[in-house]
Amino acid sequence: MLLSRSSGNGFCTLQRTCWLREMPWRNCPPTYWVRLPFCAHSTWNSAGSRRRRLMVAAGAGLGVCSILAYGNHHWQAATAEPPTATTSFPRFTREEVARHHNEANRVWVTYGNDVFDVTNFLELHPGGKSKILLAAGGALEPFWALYAMHKQDHVQEILQEYKIGELSPEEPPLPSPDDPYANDPPRHPALRVNTLKPYNAEPPPELLAEYFLTPNQLFFKRNHLPVPVVDPEAYRLCIQSPSGQTLSFSLQDLKQNFPKYEVTATIQCAGNRRAELNAVQNTNRLGWNIGAISNACWGGARLRDVLMQAGYQPGYDGHVSFEGLDKDHSGTVYGASIPFQKAMSPDVDVLLAYEMNGEELPRDHGFPLRVIVPGVVGARHVKWVARITVGPEESKSHWQQKDYKGFSSSVTWETVDFSKAPAIQEMPIQSAITEPSSKTSVSPGELKVKGYAWSGGGQRVIRVDVSLDGGKNWQEATLTGEEQLPGQAWAWKLWQLDTFVPPGTKELNIVCKAVDTSYNVQPERVEPLWNILGVLNNAWHQVRVPVEEE
Amino acid sequence: MLLSRSSGNGFCTLQRTCWLREMPWRNCPPTYWVRLPFCAHSTWNSAGSRRRRLMVAAGAGLGVCSILAYGNHHWQAATAEPPTATTSFPRFTREEVARHHNEANRVWVTYGNDVFDVTNFLELHPGGKSKILLAAGGALEPFWALYAMHKQDHVQEILQEYKIGELSPEEPPLPSPDDPYANDPPRHPALRVNTLKPYNAEPPPELLAEYFLTPNQLFFKRNHLPVPVVDPEAYRLCIQSPSGQTLSFSLQDLKQNFPKYEVTATIQCAGNRRAELNAVQNTNRLGWNIGAISNACWGGARLRDVLMQAGYQPGYDGHVSFEGLDKDHSGTVYGASIPFQKAMSPDVDVLLAYEMNGEELPRDHGFPLRVIVPGVVGARHVKWVARITVGPEESKSHWQQKDYKGFSSSVTWETVDFSKAPAIQEMPIQSAITEPSSKTSVSPGELKVKGYAWSGGGQRVIRVDVSLDGGKNWQEATLTGEEQLPGQAWAWKLWQLDTFVPPGTKELNIVCKAVDTSYNVQPERVEPLWNILGVLNNAWHQVRVPVEEE
Repeated sequence: MLLSRSSGNGFCTLQRTCWLREMPWRNCPPTYWVRLPFCAHSTWNSAGSRRRRLMVAAGAGLGVCSILAYGNHHWQAATAEPPTATTSFPRFTREEVARHHNEANRVWVTYGNDVFDVTNFLELHPGGKSKILLAAGGALEPFWALYAMHKQDHVQEILQEYKIGELSPEEPPLPSPDDPYANDPPRHPALRVNTLKPYNAEPPPELLAEYFLTPNQLFFKRNHLPVPVVDPEAYRLCIQSPSGQTLSFSLQDLKQNFPKYEVTATIQCAGNRRAELNAVQNTNRLGWNIGAISNACWGGARLRDVLMQAGYQPGYDGHVSFEGLDKDHSGTVYGASIPFQKAMSPDVDVLLAYEMNGEELPRDHGFPLRVIVPGVVGARHVKWVARITVGPEESKSHWQQKDYKGFSSSVTWETVDFSKAPAIQEMPIQSAITEPSSKTSVSPGELKVKGYAWSGGGQRVIRVDVSLDGGKNWQEATLTGEEQLPGQAWAWKLWQLDTFVPPGTKELNIVCKAVDTSYNVQPERVEPLWNILGVLNNAWHQVRVPVEEE
Repeated sequence: MLLSRSSGNGFCTLQRTCWLREMPWRNCPPTYWVRLPFCAHSTWNSAGSRRRRLMVAAGAGLGVCSILAYGNHHWQAATAEPPTATTSFPRFTREEVARHHNEANRVWVTYGNDVFDVTNFLELHPGGKSKILLAAGGALEPFWALYAMHKQDHVQEILQEYKIGELSPEEPPLPSPDDPYANDPPRHPALRVNTLKPYNAEPPPELLAEYFLTPNQLFFKRNHLPVPVVDPEAYRLCIQSPSGQTLSFSLQDLKQNFPKYEVTATIQCAGNRRAELNAVQNTNRLGWNIGAISNACWGGARLRDVLMQAGYQPGYDGHVSFEGLDKDHSGTVYGASIPFQKAMSPDVDVLLAYEMNGEELPRDHGFPLRVIVPGVVGARHVKWVARITVGPEESKSHWQQKDYKGFSSSVTWETVDFSKAPAIQEMPIQSAITEPSSKTSVSPGELKVKGYAWSGGGQRVIRVDVSLDGGKNWQEATLTGEEQLPGQAWAWKLWQLDTFVPPGTKELNIVCKAVDTSYNVQPERVEPLWNILGVLNNAWHQVRVPVEEE
């Protein structure tokens, strides 16, 4: 059962702190835990030096090495046991704990009934002191709910070393706990869930290539944070004008005062097919199979038109930054940016979309308004967009600066320099086999192989080669899809090969690879594509399927 | 006076050697010398130890310290005195000299009438043995013309110490005039000739990445037919107007009536690196090594401006076809086309170029006018362009319809359907290693690896990874080149990795691979890229080099 939200509380640190103080976590065991992806398991799992343990504990205190702080959160629903109370420690009230909310007074936190003084960990916290201080004077549980690596025995064990007391049994009655995901919308049960909170799920391969336009309910969902509840009447899109004014547009303004454009565009998450990278070496990030990609017809106002209305003219070498209404505990909202040139291009049709496949934009896809940037990685199609700014630099958000970038397979978390890699925008040529599935077998005789292919930047897919023997011999598949203008092939192609199982074959090693108009091809192996973020896997897709006996 | 070409024929290295033998440099003193900027004058000017003198002489032999490699070349016209003949030395024919083109046979070179044995200087050459060997068996003059430090008295003086003879006065007669290639221009002997007629040649790897702007003489030459002789006064560019009229533009019209644009753009032949494909299975087509690519700054009128002057407006979904003045025996001229949209794009700067690196367009590169289509395969940059038409279909020429297309490795000459593959326009991400060469060995200790990287369609190269162990571990190279606008990265990047030979290594298996802004990567193996036309090889480039014993 999901828990209902607590009554009103604000967003600034002060208010949040007050709010935390009022949160009676000890009587309210967390109802979910989070498993977090990419803090290398070795770090968190192995018993290490005191230094390492300190760092782990520090991480545990609030739960984030900076990497973890904003990563793809792999949420996993479960019920946790409330920590067992012991009796040999001094007792404190929550009010007493709340007084220890800064270094001057020392920093205390609670977990279950236990009280900890984590002052000595502040500087060691991999995610920075500012993050750990978010929980100062209050309970750890809501943060542990966001950052999952705490759900490991040794984190508990280390935390216990900093125990200084227990909560007094005399406490005011507790309000019901606040699940920030309580208001997430219902989802289709066919979706394969990677994490529940935030909700990340993909359609099964068997359904993926059944539709040129993916039905809204099946369209892959990629949320970084809880789905905001937005009143469409009260909603306003704020745009900073060139003179620095903030202009405000209602949904009605956008629908009535700007021509409506429709664009059929595929969206792919940078992490699509990460499961194959994780099989090489676990990145501890969302293990997407081949379904973090879908295609829809989007309707809305052209960003170019709205920006021009706001006073912008083409020809500026800067960036357009977007902020969503989805936010974390600290009030940090999701954000991303695209080049201004792209936003203003008459050839690209970047949209402020309020429709998806002819329907009102669903809540999971950004209701009431999202950005659609045809040909570009999903992370830039900011959902629940509420604020647009134009400036010389890219969005300062974590997701633009410290995620969604590509590195060589030799770059580690120790050597990575995020400033050296450009933020992913357009994406490379991609294809995958949706049928047959590796979980099935095929009969001898006729064989149908199906899949999808797509390339970023409006590059048309010109060919999909399919091999049944691991890449020795190739046949060309038949492509279907919408005819789009050259350089504006925003939508995927579905493909099909009608062929035969070669007589005597016991197992098919089916491989597909696509080519786009620039004759870019997919690379063969997954291994050389491996990278710490587990993004940009576009290796040949391979499915091994046994052939039934005749 | 420039020399006319020999009547020799054939395509292989042997023939190139013959041609070199026939080049009567002694009767044709070089008409210009080069002053190169930043090879420290002190090295070349001061009288020093024998060791220094040896090095100077070695440098003199061919002429490059690595510093020079990236210099801005300041060409300076001057008249050189032909070296004075003496009589007390044995006489050799050019054929005899040509036999001494490697260490096994000793390395001889000529300068004026003199013959030198420079075998003992090879290892001392500041620019590396590979560079001095480029002149082995032939004349020094064309290389001295490229590298200016030789134009000093003491270089001459030192060189004379290695004199072993003089050239015989008997030389073969000049080529006969009824050869359709008889009027082809003279070329630089450093070029590695794939075919003499038509002339197809590439710079050697050692020189290729020495210059961000490839010197005109070294720029790869890819001719399909004899080089036409064009009178610039009589020359007219004919353009069919939308109403069907033929408009005629003189060179003067194009230079005076349209703004001059300059674009630094790399041109790559679709067949670059075909030799590696031929090694898989011979395509019987030009066996280009890695040098069918070069970079220059082109100057000319924008095609868009000229087409608009002719009455065309943007927004038409057709093609612009070009015809050259180069023709075969039947009168068929070279032709190709590009999408009208590309021709009219204000972002691409498709040029009608009359300048190359600040000089008048050389005859081999299309004098007096050629098309430059930044980001697009060389075949569309029609040289000696004389006729432009606009229509709904691509050029009907062989080179647009039946060549320069990509197919899967399973397509054979029996099964090929040319109508199924689009004509190559933009090209995929590419890179190659120019240094060290597989023909050399490397010393233990410090190691410098160099090369180029480029991607089509204005995609910027964002990273070049270099491996010394065949692709297990990667290091990132440093990129250099001109900063160009996003989406308009028409020029290649040169790259360099300064690293160390891992101790105990007996052989380096050096590999490079590049990534562009769309995060397209080069595929690993050559085999899956093989195709009947032998085009589009952009596999990881690999060079195996033995490590010398300490």
